[in-house]
Amino acid sequence: MTEAKDNLYKIRHTLAHVLAKAVLEIDPGAKLAIGPPVDDGFYYDFNFSDSFKFGAAELKNVQKRMRKIVQKGFEPKLAEVTYEQAKEMFADQPYKLELIEEFKGGNAPITTYEIAGFTDLCEGPHVSSSDEIDQRAFKLSKIAGAYWRGDEKNTMLTRIYAYAFKTPQELEEYLEMLEEAKKRDHRKIGQEMDLFTFSEFVGGGLPMFTPRGTLMRDLIVESIEEIQKQYGWQKVTIPHITKSDLYKTSGHWDQYKEDLFFVKGKSDTEFVMKPMNCPHHTQIFASSPRSYRELPIRYTETTMVYRDEQAGELLGLSRVRSITQDDGHAFCTEEQIEQEVRNIIHIIKEFYTGLGLLNEGEYWVSLSAMDPDNPDKYMNEGGIFTRAEGILEEIAKSENLPYKRIEGEAAFYGPKLDFQFKDALGREWQLGTVQLDFSQPKRFKLEYTDKDGTRKTPVMIHRAIAGSLERFMSLIIEHFGGNFPTWLAPEQVRIVPVADAHSEYAHRVLAGLQEFNIRASVHEATDSLGKRIRSAKKAKVPYTLVLGDKEQESGSVTAELREGDKLELSLNDFVEKVVQEVKGKA
Amino acid sequence: MTEAKDNLYKIRHTLAHVLAKAVLEIDPGAKLAIGPPVDDGFYYDFNFSDSFKFGAAELKNVQKRMRKIVQKGFEPKLAEVTYEQAKEMFADQPYKLELIEEFKGGNAPITTYEIAGFTDLCEGPHVSSSDEIDQRAFKLSKIAGAYWRGDEKNTMLTRIYAYAFKTPQELEEYLEMLEEAKKRDHRKIGQEMDLFTFSEFVGGGLPMFTPRGTLMRDLIVESIEEIQKQYGWQKVTIPHITKSDLYKTSGHWDQYKEDLFFVKGKSDTEFVMKPMNCPHHTQIFASSPRSYRELPIRYTETTMVYRDEQAGELLGLSRVRSITQDDGHAFCTEEQIEQEVRNIIHIIKEFYTGLGLLNEGEYWVSLSAMDPDNPDKYMNEGGIFTRAEGILEEIAKSENLPYKRIEGEAAFYGPKLDFQFKDALGREWQLGTVQLDFSQPKRFKLEYTDKDGTRKTPVMIHRAIAGSLERFMSLIIEHFGGNFPTWLAPEQVRIVPVADAHSEYAHRVLAGLQEFNIRASVHEATDSLGKRIRSAKKAKVPYTLVLGDKEQESGSVTAELREGDKLELSLNDFVEKVVQEVKGKA
Repeated sequence: MTEAKDNLYKIRHTLAHVLAKAVLEIDPGAKLAIGPPVDDGFYYDFNFSDSFKFGAAELKNVQKRMRKIVQKGFEPKLAEVTYEQAKEMFADQPYKLELIEEFKGGNAPITTYEIAGFTDLCEGPHVSSSDEIDQRAFKLSKIAGAYWRGDEKNTMLTRIYAYAFKTPQELEEYLEMLEEAKKRDHRKIGQEMDLFTFSEFVGGGLPMFTPRGTLMRDLIVESIEEIQKQYGWQKVTIPHITKSDLYKTSGHWDQYKEDLFFVKGKSDTEFVMKPMNCPHHTQIFASSPRSYRELPIRYTETTMVYRDEQAGELLGLSRVRSITQDDGHAFCTEEQIEQEVRNIIHIIKEFYTGLGLLNEGEYWVSLSAMDPDNPDKYMNEGGIFTRAEGILEEIAKSENLPYKRIEGEAAFYGPKLDFQFKDALGREWQLGTVQLDFSQPKRFKLEYTDKDGTRKTPVMIHRAIAGSLERFMSLIIEHFGGNFPTWLAPEQVRIVPVADAHSEYAHRVLAGLQEFNIRASVHEATDSLGKRIRSAKKAKVPYTLVLGDKEQESGSVTAELREGDKLELSLNDFVEKVVQEVKGKA
Repeated sequence: MTEAKDNLYKIRHTLAHVLAKAVLEIDPGAKLAIGPPVDDGFYYDFNFSDSFKFGAAELKNVQKRMRKIVQKGFEPKLAEVTYEQAKEMFADQPYKLELIEEFKGGNAPITTYEIAGFTDLCEGPHVSSSDEIDQRAFKLSKIAGAYWRGDEKNTMLTRIYAYAFKTPQELEEYLEMLEEAKKRDHRKIGQEMDLFTFSEFVGGGLPMFTPRGTLMRDLIVESIEEIQKQYGWQKVTIPHITKSDLYKTSGHWDQYKEDLFFVKGKSDTEFVMKPMNCPHHTQIFASSPRSYRELPIRYTETTMVYRDEQAGELLGLSRVRSITQDDGHAFCTEEQIEQEVRNIIHIIKEFYTGLGLLNEGEYWVSLSAMDPDNPDKYMNEGGIFTRAEGILEEIAKSENLPYKRIEGEAAFYGPKLDFQFKDALGREWQLGTVQLDFSQPKRFKLEYTDKDGTRKTPVMIHRAIAGSLERFMSLIIEHFGGNFPTWLAPEQVRIVPVADAHSEYAHRVLAGLQEFNIRASVHEATDSLGKRIRSAKKAKVPYTLVLGDKEQESGSVTAELREGDKLELSLNDFVEKVVQEVKGKA
């Protein structure tokens, strides 16, 4: 935790107490639950008196009171109390009493904080004075229901949320970002652009992609396939289920059991839906005796995996139960690690450059390394882990990657590199990844015959370029706000004839575009011109061609851009422009 | 059952009795179970005496004795006996006694047949005389273990199998076909050509496709996609699981429940793996309000469905648990049925012509129609079923399809057309299909707004071109015996430099081929020339280019074909030849 964050944490924590005090001023009978800081502010859960109604007016009132409390000033005061003292102090606060029970007989001291005359059970930390809080830099945002301790068997409480920052400017920027994020919400744009849908018959977290959404998925996948083909990646195909034996052998069973979907048929065999693809891919490697001459062998597949996320955690495409991965696994010798990882980095760089996401200052790479204090935790036979870390760091340097080495972050079976990108709203997304694995090849007894005739275990490299296609789509929808680059737009050109008389010309233009695989359609003059142009812009089509007498006579087109600009040019020049944009992924 | 088949059935049935008699001649203590006719002959199950060993020598001996019995001549004699008489007659045959018990107290008469002095419990029918049996037209084929009544809790018996036909020629042809089928067994060729694999960790019936097998799958799918794109089919994407609600609503639940894989997560929700795709696709249709202007809407997807086949029924790729379908569903008005079905027929015709499977006399089309005696069984609201049948028949005629109208074969929800193809071994495969469906759109309350503003229910058309990709691959592997047409061969050209000195030229040729997307590789001079040429032929590569001094000097290639022919031509001419073959799907 950085120093700045630490301060912000204290500000938010202290404000949660101020909120509780203000609430008690207007409903002295309110029962208090808990009030922690969160990523963008804080919240506090209350059980209001039966006769008390808490609505929008009360929210405003409480906020005003909070400002006054801060204005008046205070210095939080820490105190240690015994279990019995605590019980007495919070005798009329049942939730606090429940929390106090957990300290009974324990060694940890029970602490309270007194803030502006109101004492709460609390571990801290808090600001040392209200001077550290800017009363214009926080805002109560909303109220929502929340079960005590998150358990639906308990009482439903009222949660009051707030945003809180150090300065009013930061709050302002955050509110603007939220406003923009709301406009760009991929669920909203996804529906407007007809990209995907959910059905109550099918279930939550199981998106279905429409023709337009599927086209976008295919364009993304084809774009990756085109790049990776140059580096010898070959497509394979596996089923979505397996006997549980596969994961018991791979070592994933204990780790993933909780999130697995179990599959039961007529037989006693225990099947599960695959939550990852690597163990299946090891079985294709194992299907033939392998020689060093064949290595590296690189299997890639865009396929769905399944994870049983809680219904409450599902969110549009960003959190789903059926996850499409552009997965890949290379099997190679230790000597080949360097070239293999470098090639994967090149694929990631080329793909994200094509999306305009690989800009200086807008991405970084984390290098997950061993914890130097716990070297025994890692598979470092003959120093292979240490050497591999060195290789990754060397590649990060020579490829000019803005990387951070994070010690203790590596899995026991190998170091990795993760690409972290910032979207248009400044939010960070972990996407492309390269992970070394010294464990699975051993567990599945994978082997190749080396030059000298001895049997050796290959190294396995896991990689993903886009990662989860669903999450990736939610990112690019929000990043571009639906204004996709031309190569990725499901519909690239909408042709709008001014009147019926221009319909024939419109269809000639359509044929001319389709000849060059430009995705276009004609919106006939069934509606007013203005309405049709607006409809094209709402669908975020990159080019709307308005064709009237002038265009028809000169064989030209007038292209309206999403941003409002207009271009007048010959059909040939327009085709050339679009073809070049698609080619250059502009 | 045709008259001819009926006779063959009797011959096989009578021969089963003859087999039992011959067995009793060499092991009088053998206990007899049952001996039915089967598709290519008959079998009989025995429990031999403890001291008796039945092996290859005994099989020969029994066959000789059977010939003698037939030669000597007999006339089967039917007799009716009472339950008590039967019990006495078969007192020392425990399996027969068990069968007799089932007649106890029933009204059906118990019948026996006496054949060549040996009496067996039997319902018939049999030949009227041994003159109808040609003693050279049957052959005992093998012995295998089989549980009494197929239940593994019962005694393991010895089953003796035999092939039996009317004439020695028919037997001979059948044995030759079996020999050829063995050579072409897709499991054998699939392994030799490295197309797919199974793993005991993953489980039976769950194939994994290697890079070569995946390439073939992709070529098949792309070939279909290229054709169907012209007819407005659009790709969609759905997850592989769903809440069971989807099938409860579609009406599939009761019918398919037995073969479903049930999926269980943390929640109480009942999920299943999809055994078909149509109900999911209805939900994409239902995701937006639809106008008559948008119809037909055509969704297509190549995706896996899952059916819980019994482990004992699984067989290579021809019977699997994970089935990849090239599925498609069109939603249209009644008026559009004709054009839609016609277009689908065109897709099927074009695709199978490209594989050389659409030859006169080698395919036929079944038209499944209503049972005229049970018209109430069918969804014929306003006569739509009757009209649709007429449309399908009209299309079959005008498209010159060799069709047979099969009454009573239609599903209650609509008539259909199924394409039946004969492979190189004369075996029939049902592949392409078009099925009308008046039921699902109603059950899911699908609607579109018609010209006059009223809400109407669309017709749904199910279609598949290749059907199950796994089954389709098993067919084409066996049909071509692995000698795939050039466009479908995973490796099209193998380049074999005579010696190291020709390696550089070999790589220049490779680059020349790859420029035109020809799938080629170089097999360097690490082994003898003969060995490398044999290896290419074993891998059934269409063209093996042997490059030595002569070729290098003249910039030409010598191409050896799988069939043994040799071609000498310039590299340019060779490229042109291969490119044309791929284009023309030759």
